[in-house]
Order: sequence, then C-alpha cells, then structure tokens
Amino acid sequence: MGTEISTLGEFGLIKRLTENIEIKNPETKYSTGDDCAVLKYADDKEILVTTDMLMEGVHFDLTYMPMKHLGYKSAMVNLSDIYAMGGMPKQITVSIALSKRFSIEDMEDFYDGLRLACDIHGVDIVGGDTTSSRTGLAISITAIGEAEKGKAIYRNGAKETDLICVSGDLGAAYMGLQLLEREKDVYYKMISTAKTDTERLAISQPDFSGREYLLERQMKPEARRDIILKLRELGIQPTSMIDISDGLSSELIHICTQSHCGCRIYEERIPIDYQTAVMCEEMNMNLTTAAMNGGEDYELLFTVPITDHEKIEQMEGIKLIGHITKKELGCALISRDGGEFELKAQGWNPLKEDSKEQ
Amino acid sequence: MGTEISTLGEFGLIKRLTENIEIKNPETKYSTGDDCAVLKYADDKEILVTTDMLMEGVHFDLTYMPMKHLGYKSAMVNLSDIYAMGGMPKQITVSIALSKRFSIEDMEDFYDGLRLACDIHGVDIVGGDTTSSRTGLAISITAIGEAEKGKAIYRNGAKETDLICVSGDLGAAYMGLQLLEREKDVYYKMISTAKTDTERLAISQPDFSGREYLLERQMKPEARRDIILKLRELGIQPTSMIDISDGLSSELIHICTQSHCGCRIYEERIPIDYQTAVMCEEMNMNLTTAAMNGGEDYELLFTVPITDHEKIEQMEGIKLIGHITKKELGCALISRDGGEFELKAQGWNPLKEDSKEQ
Repeated sequence: MGTEISTLGEFGLIKRLTENIEIKNPETKYSTGDDCAVLKYADDKEILVTTDMLMEGVHFDLTYMPMKHLGYKSAMVNLSDIYAMGGMPKQITVSIALSKRFSIEDMEDFYDGLRLACDIHGVDIVGGDTTSSRTGLAISITAIGEAEKGKAIYRNGAKETDLICVSGDLGAAYMGLQLLEREKDVYYKMISTAKTDTERLAISQPDFSGREYLLERQMKPEARRDIILKLRELGIQPTSMIDISDGLSSELIHICTQSHCGCRIYEERIPIDYQTAVMCEEMNMNLTTAAMNGGEDYELLFTVPITDHEKIEQMEGIKLIGHITKKELGCALISRDGGEFELKAQGWNPLKEDSKEQ
Repeated sequence: MGTEISTLGEFGLIKRLTENIEIKNPETKYSTGDDCAVLKYADDKEILVTTDMLMEGVHFDLTYMPMKHLGYKSAMVNLSDIYAMGGMPKQITVSIALSKRFSIEDMEDFYDGLRLACDIHGVDIVGGDTTSSRTGLAISITAIGEAEKGKAIYRNGAKETDLICVSGDLGAAYMGLQLLEREKDVYYKMISTAKTDTERLAISQPDFSGREYLLERQMKPEARRDIILKLRELGIQPTSMIDISDGLSSELIHICTQSHCGCRIYEERIPIDYQTAVMCEEMNMNLTTAAMNGGEDYELLFTVPITDHEKIEQMEGIKLIGHITKKELGCALISRDGGEFELKAQGWNPLKEDSKEQ
C-alpha cells in the first residue's frame, strides 16, 4: 500500500516532491515556494502557454498505466503543444488532486516520470498545487515556453499548394490502447472465473513481445523537439502546424478551417508502423481508420510552401502526405483505388461518448 | 436539467464559451484557438505564474454554491496570488473536467462568473481545456501576470523590526462557510422527515438577513488589487507579502520560516467584522481561532520597514497587527491579557482531514 500521505501533510508532500528540483533555465528566476513563480524571457521572444487536464477513468487507466509513465506522459502531452507552435518549452506547473488511496510512493513515482520528461526537454518545474480529490486522480499541467518573436507557427497560415507533412508514424498509440484494453478484459475474465487460489496464481501476465512499440507509443509518447530543431537547422518555417492528439483527420480539419482552405491527402502515403498494421489485422480493425482517427500520436502535422519540397525530402522521419487546396474543394482522403472520402473529425471526444457518471 | 453538453460536443462547447471574449491587454498576442496562447511582456517586467485546483466535494459544495459564484471565486483565488507578489494579473487559462450531470447552461453560468472577475481585474482568458470527468467537477486555473523587474514581493524578505500589516478583516469567509453548512444540514433534516409533498413544499429557504457579509466573503471573495495600487501610489515597497488563503497563522509562519525570523502579533489588533463576531458567539466558536485559522480570506498579509509606519497609518483598510522579531523568539500571538501563544499552522489541510474516498 505504501506510506499514507497524511503522514507528511500537504506542505510536507510538496516539499518532498520538489526539494531536489534543479533549475535549468535562466528564464526561471524563482521556482516553487512562493505565491507565484517568477520568469523573465528575453525581449526577442514571445511566450507560449498551454494547459491540459488528465482525469482518471477518462484519460488514463491505472490498471495498466504505472504512475511513473503517467507523470512522463502528462508532461509530454503539454510539451508537445509548445513544439506544435514551433517553440521551446521552458517551464511547467503541475497540479494534482488525489484521493486517499494514493501513497507518498505513488506520488514520488509520478514525479520521477515528470522529472525525467522535464530533464530530457530542458524544462523547469516551477510550481503547482497538490490537493485532495473525493475520487480518483486529476492532473492539470500548464507548460510555458518561448518562440522567436514573430516566428510562432499557428494553425491558420496554410496556403493553397502548400505541402502537408507529418512526422513519425500514426495509429500505434491507439492500437497500443486497444491491446492493453483487450488484455485487461482477458485478465479480469480469468480472475473472475478462477475458483481456487492455485488457479488464480496460475493466471499469467499477458505476453506483449513483438508489440513493445505499440505499448511504448501509448504509455511513453515523445514530444517532437527533434523535428523543431531540424526544421530550424534547415531554415524551414512551416506555414501552419499542430500536434496530433485527437487524430490526423481532426487536426487536418483544424488547420483547414482556421486557414480557410481545403486539402487532399493520400491513403498510401500515411506513415504506419509494421506493428500497427499487424495489430489491426489481428483485431480485425481498419488500419486507415486507426491511423486517421486513433489519436494520441503526439506527432507534428505541418504545412510548408511547395518551394521547400527538396528540403523536406531531406528530412528523415518526415512524410509528405498531401497538399493544401482551395477551400471549395473541402478536405478529403484519396484512397488507394482513387476514391475520394471527406474527412470527418471522428477524433476522440470524451464529452460525447460513454464516460459514465458514478 | 438544462441542455446536455453532448449536443455541442467538446469543440462546440469551447467555442460557445469563448466566442465573446474580448482581449483587453496588449500583452496578449493570441488567445484561444491554437495549441498555445502567445504572450509578449515588456522588457522591464517579470512574469508571474500561479495555479490552483478546485475539486468538487473538497473545495466547493454545489448544494449552496451557484455556478456563477464558483466561476468568480475560481478566478479570484488565482488573481489573489498574483497580487500577493505585488503584481498585476493579465491572463488566465481555465481547465474544467465535468461529468454528465452538468449542462451547457451550467457552464455558461460558470463562465459568466469567470468573465465578470476577469473584467473587473482587466484579465484575458487565453486558453484552457474542457474535458469530462467520471464524477463531479474539477477546475484548474493558471494565472499569469507581471511585476516591475526586481520589484516582485516574495515571502522571504521580512526583517527584524518590520511592521506586520493585514488588509480588510479576517474570519468572515470561514464563518460564512459554517453558516452555509449549518443551514444545509437543517434543510436536509427537514426534507428527510417531511412526510407529504405539502410538508416538503412548506420548508422555507434559510433566512440569511443580517449575515450577507459572511456569505459574500465565502461565495464572492475579492482579490485586493486596490491595495497593490495604493501601496504603489504611496511608494511603499513591502519587504514580504502573501495572501491569506489558509489562515493568518499559517501564512505568518510561511513568511517567518522563509525570512528566517520570528514575529509577535496582538490579538486585540486582529481586524474582525461585527457579523463575524456575532456568528461566532451564536455558534459558540472561538473568535480569535476563526480569524487566525479560518482561511479563504484572500486578504493581503505583508511586512514593511518601520520607517513606513506613518505611510501605512494613512492607508484605509490596513491594520498593523504586530512586528517581526529575531528567529529565536519564535512566532507568537499576544492575547488580550498579555499571554503568549505559539502560532500553529492549523490551516486547512485537505490531505490530512476527512476527505472521504468513494
């Protein structure tokens, strides 16, 4: 069970979790321990701010999500939003509301994951709030970063004939989730039908070998700092950019709506990993749907002027999937056999679906 | 019941709530609608960041807290932290996780309160996250503001012989909460013993006349922008400052711990409103305890050099309650009869108390 948080109290817990945090950025003047953090950014920078909330039972399932991974992912999804503006993250604040079933060790694990993500991305943890919840765990993270003045990349700058590019591959995080959910169901079914302790002990852990990539994409997503650095190095200034959290379809529609344009993307060009394809086959699911609407990829979707074509071709891990059109042409996927399908934002919408009131 | 949120969906709801928001500050370059908000602060400013999470059943009770007041208070408690650093708030981000029992109208009421608080304080709503929760309502707000470079007021600057000052009066918000809780209990008792519809309809609403101030302090706290402006006008730079959210005792201990000093405050000098005193009498509670440990006052507690004595005396609504001492003398309250009582941080600690796991 671990140590009850009440043995430390709120202030004690905060102290324990934050006492070893070292400040990495000169932009952080004062970190935790006062009413506010104090920051100072250089005059040639603009400040980026983004925030995301993660709720137990909606965004994560602690049955298979270790606290350390949860901390890592919670930070990562916010950092990804800073990169999606072409910026560099510098600080985060972390608010957590937790019920009594969580121990000090749970919180330490969560912070270990959080710190690891922050260390990799050069980010300071500068504050937050730790409080209690009647049920479950609620996490709210705000990330702050910088972009060169006038160089932030919005969703609204795509122009007709621009090329549409995507980093990495899509659908793997979603298939990882399907796999974890399936194995969870199997496990619970076996537990519930086991009649003796011997039978219960004989239930084996699921074998995930050959599916490691899917699990990693679901449980340990990586925000694409490397892509931003590479774009800068090559002197490419994308005309629009967004990170893929709700699925490629949904994000493309965001870009096209805000840029007042349409798009054509090609099914055969959507980057998909081998393990994703195998898993879809095994589960009898449509691969293109998984890649288009799965979500949680945290890859970058961006557009560049057609004149940057050669530079983009040089970039490893970037796939050119289509181009921007006039608004009147709408947003469509061209299938392998040449069919045209209108894009729909079938992305994950927790407010619409089966989140159960308890 | 109002209109189900699923009729709008997540993006529709966000659009509805944010479409009429006007940007007031030149520091806000880009607001809602992208991966991040984009801000730009003048080079002679430092940036202040603070965040607070409010959980249903822990921080607020919707039985008596209208959604509009909740929105107002949620913003206010964050703005208060910016003022507590001697700064001016400029932006907030608002994250909400809500269960299916909330309607679009509920969210509109919440945003009305939020907007009202922001309008009064000249603050822009620049982003956030709206998502679902399995149970209840979770609110996380981050406030961003500015202080003149080098002029942010920390908790750690109090010096021996400094005067300890507090704005407004204390204990009223706490007594307002006691009153609301009492009336809620009475109401539920009457409902549960009523045998017929006629009896149920005859149950009257509680009469709060003469206690309006207590309710207002609990349900509609005001962040003390006016005090910060007045201090600037008089050229007073406090040596330390904090806002009173957990109670005077607790906040004084924060200042003294971080400033490595002690303090003496005088019971007879603690500002208390007449209604607070009457309510304590009626409920047979200790008035000084309510004022020292009640919390949620959102008044400013600060220290000034003794040379500012005359200037402080000029300030309306500021009470001089004691002075800073050497660390060795500890933190103590001097009672009316001259007794010395060590201060204890009996402030509200939700992680320690009776928050029930469901």
